[in-house]
Amino acid sequence: MRRYAADKARRAVAASLRAASRSAGPSPAPAPHPRSPAPVAAMAAALARAMSTASVGTPAVSINTINPKVLKCEYAVRGEIVTHAQNLQQELQKNPESLPFDEILYCNIGNPQSLGQQPVTFFREVLSLCDHPVLLDKSETHALYSSDAIERAWQILDKIPGRATGAYSHSQGIKGLRDEIAAGIAARDGFHASGDNIFLTDGASPAVHMMMQLLISSEKDGILCPIPQYPLYSASIALHGGSLVPYFLDEETGWGLEVDELKKQLEEARSKGITVRALVVINPGNPTGQVLAEENQKKIVEFCKNEGLVLLADEVYQENIYVEDKQFHSFKKIARSMGYTDDDLPLVSFQSVSKGYYGECGKRGGYMEVTGFSPEVREQIYKVASVNLCSNISGQILASLVMNPPKAGDESFESFMAERDGILSSLARRAKALEEAFNSLEGITCNKAEGAMYLFPRLHLPQKAIGAAQAAGTAPDAYYAKHLLEATGILVVPGSGFGQVPGTWHFRCTILPQEDKIPAIISRFKEFHEKFMDEYRD
Amino acid sequence: MRRYAADKARRAVAASLRAASRSAGPSPAPAPHPRSPAPVAAMAAALARAMSTASVGTPAVSINTINPKVLKCEYAVRGEIVTHAQNLQQELQKNPESLPFDEILYCNIGNPQSLGQQPVTFFREVLSLCDHPVLLDKSETHALYSSDAIERAWQILDKIPGRATGAYSHSQGIKGLRDEIAAGIAARDGFHASGDNIFLTDGASPAVHMMMQLLISSEKDGILCPIPQYPLYSASIALHGGSLVPYFLDEETGWGLEVDELKKQLEEARSKGITVRALVVINPGNPTGQVLAEENQKKIVEFCKNEGLVLLADEVYQENIYVEDKQFHSFKKIARSMGYTDDDLPLVSFQSVSKGYYGECGKRGGYMEVTGFSPEVREQIYKVASVNLCSNISGQILASLVMNPPKAGDESFESFMAERDGILSSLARRAKALEEAFNSLEGITCNKAEGAMYLFPRLHLPQKAIGAAQAAGTAPDAYYAKHLLEATGILVVPGSGFGQVPGTWHFRCTILPQEDKIPAIISRFKEFHEKFMDEYRD
Repeated sequence: MRRYAADKARRAVAASLRAASRSAGPSPAPAPHPRSPAPVAAMAAALARAMSTASVGTPAVSINTINPKVLKCEYAVRGEIVTHAQNLQQELQKNPESLPFDEILYCNIGNPQSLGQQPVTFFREVLSLCDHPVLLDKSETHALYSSDAIERAWQILDKIPGRATGAYSHSQGIKGLRDEIAAGIAARDGFHASGDNIFLTDGASPAVHMMMQLLISSEKDGILCPIPQYPLYSASIALHGGSLVPYFLDEETGWGLEVDELKKQLEEARSKGITVRALVVINPGNPTGQVLAEENQKKIVEFCKNEGLVLLADEVYQENIYVEDKQFHSFKKIARSMGYTDDDLPLVSFQSVSKGYYGECGKRGGYMEVTGFSPEVREQIYKVASVNLCSNISGQILASLVMNPPKAGDESFESFMAERDGILSSLARRAKALEEAFNSLEGITCNKAEGAMYLFPRLHLPQKAIGAAQAAGTAPDAYYAKHLLEATGILVVPGSGFGQVPGTWHFRCTILPQEDKIPAIISRFKEFHEKFMDEYRD
Repeated sequence: MRRYAADKARRAVAASLRAASRSAGPSPAPAPHPRSPAPVAAMAAALARAMSTASVGTPAVSINTINPKVLKCEYAVRGEIVTHAQNLQQELQKNPESLPFDEILYCNIGNPQSLGQQPVTFFREVLSLCDHPVLLDKSETHALYSSDAIERAWQILDKIPGRATGAYSHSQGIKGLRDEIAAGIAARDGFHASGDNIFLTDGASPAVHMMMQLLISSEKDGILCPIPQYPLYSASIALHGGSLVPYFLDEETGWGLEVDELKKQLEEARSKGITVRALVVINPGNPTGQVLAEENQKKIVEFCKNEGLVLLADEVYQENIYVEDKQFHSFKKIARSMGYTDDDLPLVSFQSVSKGYYGECGKRGGYMEVTGFSPEVREQIYKVASVNLCSNISGQILASLVMNPPKAGDESFESFMAERDGILSSLARRAKALEEAFNSLEGITCNKAEGAMYLFPRLHLPQKAIGAAQAAGTAPDAYYAKHLLEATGILVVPGSGFGQVPGTWHFRCTILPQEDKIPAIISRFKEFHEKFMDEYRD
């Protein structure tokens, strides 16, 4: 217990330091020189530790000799509050009665199956067969697997050289699977797509890292990112030593993305000597949930073309749309519909098997479609991919399946559609129920989740709560999230982890708990929130 | 055909440029400033291209605006000669009669299943069941899967929170699987191992990148690497902007690793202002195949401890030992047997499911065991891991299986042992047959492969051949390998891709073609080599 308390104290101090540096809001200033940005407090603490330990010989590695870019990187969705939650969970396992709740509800991260979502049967049948291909020769297999899954597994094996599911593939992924994905993209968009432009990756994250590695040489290279943003972008830019150039989404207009804001921020960055290399757009939005309108997307494409920016389109939530009046359009479709070709605009679209209705996060599958780069640059992207040899084959197979699911007439079609629609319509109901609940509360306003898997409610906190947070050395939304966790077991991520307009406070909450749990979550949340507001009412 | 010829010409020019910069041998000099190292020739070519294309607006990205560290990175085992082989393969598919062979033999990379090695049944049964867990509730499953595979799948599912094989796991990997791996390590070494020190990764490559990212801040940070080395290390050091500090293995003593050489190179690097952070040791060696003796390993541990270096131990070939008088000892076992604890030495051991007798390259599983770092540095390693969320779950499961295979008494034990021993003893025979064949030839000397999956024969080429290579603007070993490929379809990697003592020439050849193909390979090789020597005899 003493160790736990000490740990808690240590974390609180660390949190206060981080919050202090964070609460100033995101800054478009270039990152400081790689040799100097380790937070002064951390350096001082490390020095104190080094001095207090009588070390024999030279210490091989310490917090002040490691890469300062690593120190600078933050990743809120798996950050400090998550570690706190994991500690509470261990506490619960040891003493189930010790806390005022009986489980941690992980609403911090888009991880559907961790909260009980079942995998799509057809996809898992095919993966299971491809993992053990000798099954395909056995008659008993027909008793356990659907006929179209068996057929599909054969088709996939035929695309793999030597049918070797355990071999490294081409570094972009198995050609036949890439072609299948390209066919799926073409069917989705109505425009040609080529398997040669597909790079299969272990989820979308490594693909984003690959592009950042390519585009960023130093802190003079900037990447325009939405604020709020998914912290993969800020983390990756920090790790590669570039500058995050923020543009703010407009909460008043449902997290609108205004081209005027892009222009303003671009000019401001340029005036500081930053060469802006790329624009990141997350559509549907994460953590914000908005779905961009076609006209808006056209203006964004035009902006990238005119300003010479690579368009990095995070389109991993393309299947997660919950409102009647919005539709997903890929940026490539928009660009092609405007008459732009490969020669006009370098464009990367990221897709993942972790999201959609399938939510196969643990499979680590995904791809990027890379268009509009010169052959020389393309070769460099390929080289970087080749240093990691290839992405995992099960993830590759799954990426081909989600882009080419069962069709009408296939044995699995009806059950597949029932699973798919069941998940998507339930997600839509959950999004609506949570949004209404948040909006019903004093001091919370919440935009609709048109898509993706999150709500990003704004907290209008009483001054007294803000003062209490400051006194505790933490950001107000982090203060709120910590109290929420400790009172209810509900884990959300403070808005400061995503960036927000300075002086505003939010949190991100996934819509992923199973539907039968939503009413209890809402009532636990309401109870906590009302008490919190009562306690801190000015 | 014209396009193919043009492509060939373009590649030949590129090859000559690279070979010219390469043939000077590895240099311990620090990398030039990140803004300047793009090869001058590449820059000039890019400029010419940019000028010849009338581009509208600012080009968004070009070969001279991308990260020069990416340009600098090379990865020979998937490099230019491999692309050439892939082009030849396409040629073969179109015109089977157009070339003097009917298939490409990919001896460039340790990819056993691509050359026909069959996966280990027990491992695949378990993966197949874990991919589709509903099978576990069906009686028909017993007709298709062994009882211990079913039992193991249950055990694994019980270790996964919510039995959710499709969820992101803890960023180090599933705790129960890490504990199982730690138990396997403890059984192997006879010293304690902890699941808390295991980081599961998508193969060993991302683990190596993670450590390089942590340890390298700038070109002033050096990493001691063997020469010859596996080019993952040079590529990763280049990508992260550090300096490769080479130490030469002694070919005369069977690729001996001498501590005097380590000391000499360390001093030389230090005199140039480089802070050496870590020592990479590959044991069993890649591409060199030597297995280090225990006494030698002790001296290496002592050296790292005295000099304050992190020991990065690439131990991915730990199961691939082919000689009676050698045994694998992990560096952790060696360090512990010397009485050194976690406080004495930061040590990282890399392991992969891609090698061993299983050769499951496509599954992208692996782990690193991280010991001897301060809690603060450990936390930073965790943070970097968390930015990529987690490694793929199938790879995690497989890593736990290879560290805990079937035991005596299990239903699969006998067939498992037969598969395992069959593969390992065949690899030993293949290594021996190829080594003897190489040594029987004029102008080739070849050390024994005591372990790993490669031979690294030395070419003693006639002066005339060296002159012809120079005239063709390529390194002599690259020249040889290209002619070998074009005459026989056998693809090997020139020694220049791994580094070698300047003025010596080698190639790396895997021992992985199936055993029944070895005699034909040897005779094709001999025929080519004899002709080559006759043609260029001085």
